[in-house]
Amino acid sequence: MSLLVIGSMAFDSVETPFGKADEVLGGSGTFFSVAASYFTDVRLVAVVGNDFPDEHLQMLRERNIDLTGVTMADGATFRWKGRYGFELNEAQTLDTQLNVFADFRPELPAGYAESEFVFLANIDPELQSEVLRQVRRPRLIAADSMNFWITGKREALLETLKGVDLLVINEGETRQLAGEANLIKAARAVLNMGPKTLIVKRGEYGVLMFSPGEIFAAPAYPLEEVFDPTGAGDTFAGGFMGYLAATKNLEPENIRRAIVYGSVMASFTVEDFSLNRLKSLTIEEIDVRFKEFKMMTEFIAG
Amino acid sequence: MSLLVIGSMAFDSVETPFGKADEVLGGSGTFFSVAASYFTDVRLVAVVGNDFPDEHLQMLRERNIDLTGVTMADGATFRWKGRYGFELNEAQTLDTQLNVFADFRPELPAGYAESEFVFLANIDPELQSEVLRQVRRPRLIAADSMNFWITGKREALLETLKGVDLLVINEGETRQLAGEANLIKAARAVLNMGPKTLIVKRGEYGVLMFSPGEIFAAPAYPLEEVFDPTGAGDTFAGGFMGYLAATKNLEPENIRRAIVYGSVMASFTVEDFSLNRLKSLTIEEIDVRFKEFKMMTEFIAG
Repeated sequence: MSLLVIGSMAFDSVETPFGKADEVLGGSGTFFSVAASYFTDVRLVAVVGNDFPDEHLQMLRERNIDLTGVTMADGATFRWKGRYGFELNEAQTLDTQLNVFADFRPELPAGYAESEFVFLANIDPELQSEVLRQVRRPRLIAADSMNFWITGKREALLETLKGVDLLVINEGETRQLAGEANLIKAARAVLNMGPKTLIVKRGEYGVLMFSPGEIFAAPAYPLEEVFDPTGAGDTFAGGFMGYLAATKNLEPENIRRAIVYGSVMASFTVEDFSLNRLKSLTIEEIDVRFKEFKMMTEFIAG
Repeated sequence: MSLLVIGSMAFDSVETPFGKADEVLGGSGTFFSVAASYFTDVRLVAVVGNDFPDEHLQMLRERNIDLTGVTMADGATFRWKGRYGFELNEAQTLDTQLNVFADFRPELPAGYAESEFVFLANIDPELQSEVLRQVRRPRLIAADSMNFWITGKREALLETLKGVDLLVINEGETRQLAGEANLIKAARAVLNMGPKTLIVKRGEYGVLMFSPGEIFAAPAYPLEEVFDPTGAGDTFAGGFMGYLAATKNLEPENIRRAIVYGSVMASFTVEDFSLNRLKSLTIEEIDVRFKEFKMMTEFIAG
């Protein structure tokens, strides 16, 4: 049941049409770990500055997240500042301060190399490859990336992708990575770069999963109040990988269930700023929403 | 099994990144009728000019579409000219010539007033209301509309909606009609305007159906070649209403099936210009794609 994630821990300052939050807990590793923690134990590799409050670490530990791999470096924690308009689809980045994250070199603590499920959150593809060199025969390696690396470090990213089983990126990134406007053709091109499975995140339109000979479409949960989309993608990945690690089952039908659990978790994250909603869920709330997804998509032949 | 549609018949000139077509057969009534004709007999009420070639009428008749309600007026047929970019989501209208459509007053031929299923395609809401005054107790009245009427003839449209059971509009139109950015809230607002069911078309993202206490999400069929989206919405409505009229079953599970059949039909229309693909389908092709929708969306609880 060992699930390892390498990602960021950050302070986010976010403005949406519905309010603003200053210096709240964020980061891909944080959202991923907390989402996955509802399904399995998680090992988090990340770096924070010495300004990182102990209460956040305490919250993560209480959710059975192993922080042995979280280094506290001398300096300030990574900070991101962004703004969303009414569309809530894409953030406008107002400021990025890498701080201690600029010198982050992921080193796996003893025992972590044997993790069976590994998620490389959206970091420099060269660092993702460094992690790949350290792990030994995981059952599943999944990764995220973004436009910044697709254009800025394309060769390194393509190298990383050769060692990745499953890629989770958004729609625009899929088109950009493949250099192809049609999403279905773009997805097929990405499947030729290494990953056997591609999950395309489409925000409020849900996700599409592509693997050879198979497509699965899951809608997003219809929410009357979307407060802050920050962390939705990382939460999706955390719920998805957490469920797979807990069930240790990589059959196509279990991957579909994992995608729905990922979508369920993401739907909670966007209901409030930071991890405010995500960190205080019950298993019952998760199960109810899973069943709602089922009801929302089911149809039977006449 | 009587299905009545009131809509337009037109010549479309379309440019897409993949080619162009001049003065090809189009119009909401045409796409709707041909799509529905794979499921049931159809009665079409529309107007054409005396420039309308007999071969088009012949094609429609051969598909068992009753053209008693199609008037041939002195003048030119309605013409629309539009262009799509790579996104293929929204057409840029380059030219509209209403011609004989400007004086269109739908009058139902004898017997049509008893039609059990009625579709008011996207025409002036005042004309839609005129049709509503002529029909007698249909089992289902559905309607389409557009931004042009939502802003330009809002009061008339709200009046029409009071007599409509089911409304089929796109995402932006739903938000505009409700004056609400959140789609789920907007849908609830529209359900308070008259229709008991709202189907929101989202192009390549599929459709969302809203009724009190129920939401159904269907993806679009993933196509590697989307040639021309013109008529996709009308085709969806035709497949949807055609299946309902053929099965005479308005239970929620049958409405879901009808939505999937509508999506199947729309996926064929966009594969070529005009009705080139739509008009020459086989029942087997339709059934295969329906099964693919099922496989693409199915997941089971663990």
